[in-house]
Amino acid sequence: MAEVLTAEAILVATEEVLRRYGPAKATVVDVAKALGVSHGSVYRHFATKAALREAVTRRWLDAIHVEMASVINPEGSAAENLKAWLQHLFDKKRLSHTDEPELFATFRVLVSESCAIPEYHVGHLVGQVARIIRAGVDTQEFVTDDVEKTAQAVWDATDRFHHPAHANEWGDPHIQDAFDAVVSLVIAGLRYNRVPSAAGDA
Amino acid sequence: MAEVLTAEAILVATEEVLRRYGPAKATVVDVAKALGVSHGSVYRHFATKAALREAVTRRWLDAIHVEMASVINPEGSAAENLKAWLQHLFDKKRLSHTDEPELFATFRVLVSESCAIPEYHVGHLVGQVARIIRAGVDTQEFVTDDVEKTAQAVWDATDRFHHPAHANEWGDPHIQDAFDAVVSLVIAGLRYNRVPSAAGDA
Repeated sequence: MAEVLTAEAILVATEEVLRRYGPAKATVVDVAKALGVSHGSVYRHFATKAALREAVTRRWLDAIHVEMASVINPEGSAAENLKAWLQHLFDKKRLSHTDEPELFATFRVLVSESCAIPEYHVGHLVGQVARIIRAGVDTQEFVTDDVEKTAQAVWDATDRFHHPAHANEWGDPHIQDAFDAVVSLVIAGLRYNRVPSAAGDA
Repeated sequence: MAEVLTAEAILVATEEVLRRYGPAKATVVDVAKALGVSHGSVYRHFATKAALREAVTRRWLDAIHVEMASVINPEGSAAENLKAWLQHLFDKKRLSHTDEPELFATFRVLVSESCAIPEYHVGHLVGQVARIIRAGVDTQEFVTDDVEKTAQAVWDATDRFHHPAHANEWGDPHIQDAFDAVVSLVIAGLRYNRVPSAAGDA
């Protein structure tokens, strides 16, 4: 058995064990049992329980990053892309919180176990927002002298719709209106100071 | 003694008791003891412990509302007023969280005990933001077709800097930069779509 045991198989089994037992109870022994191997075989791939949990979390977050990147339409306007991207993230988090509250809570615990993980996750997503804004600056749809800082500001300004501390507000019947109003305000902010298209340098 | 016992004196004593014992342990008997009266005398003014706690919370929030309203300078521009108002709120909350963490936690518990209280508090503050925006619309500094909705959007977009769920981020050394970036973006959003001053109706 040991020679066919891949890191990927361990990660899949660990995610399933976490889903079943929750983050407080899931152990490496449970993962080994689910795979029909000894816990030593699991430790050969992941030196510690913490390393295994971090790898599962990163794998799960990477899937989200790929999905979020796919929302960006290279043919779309920057405003359309930003709106669609923020909406997709909000819908994804809201549905996950409503439909799979235990899994949502599990991953919330996992993400908060290491300082490196939230930084990794937020860094990736803010990087995607920066990509959208940069495209908007290139087409003169948006104006900013600091794309990275502005991307972080967009992220912060919309945190009611992605930060898990606000998850209990996502069931509010007016939450979509609130989202629309904030996103409009943010997009108007990104457009302000747009250089008139006929302006010269001199 | 009973004839000089005012509701105000009870509220002052209750705040002190809450400050000393915390929200979980403070009782009406403690309040009565601190005032040297029977608990019956306290109940003559406040029918239940919940009513007393709610009255203390409202009194404390009202003082904040008065202080926040005083930040608005009738001679200032709307952008200056909005920035100063948001900064004052942020500084106030941040200092309270850093310097008096137990009192901050106490009032956080009190505010969350009744659904009416957060609505009352947020409603008041969003009303002040609406007042600032309306003044900006009157002077054509800001543009919006819905002042109330926009005020709520400004409140939501800045929640990282006033919502207690984010209090653990307020010690971040870059938090003031993050605040400045969000407030800039929001103010730019409020200015966008400004009708050119020479525009006619026809």
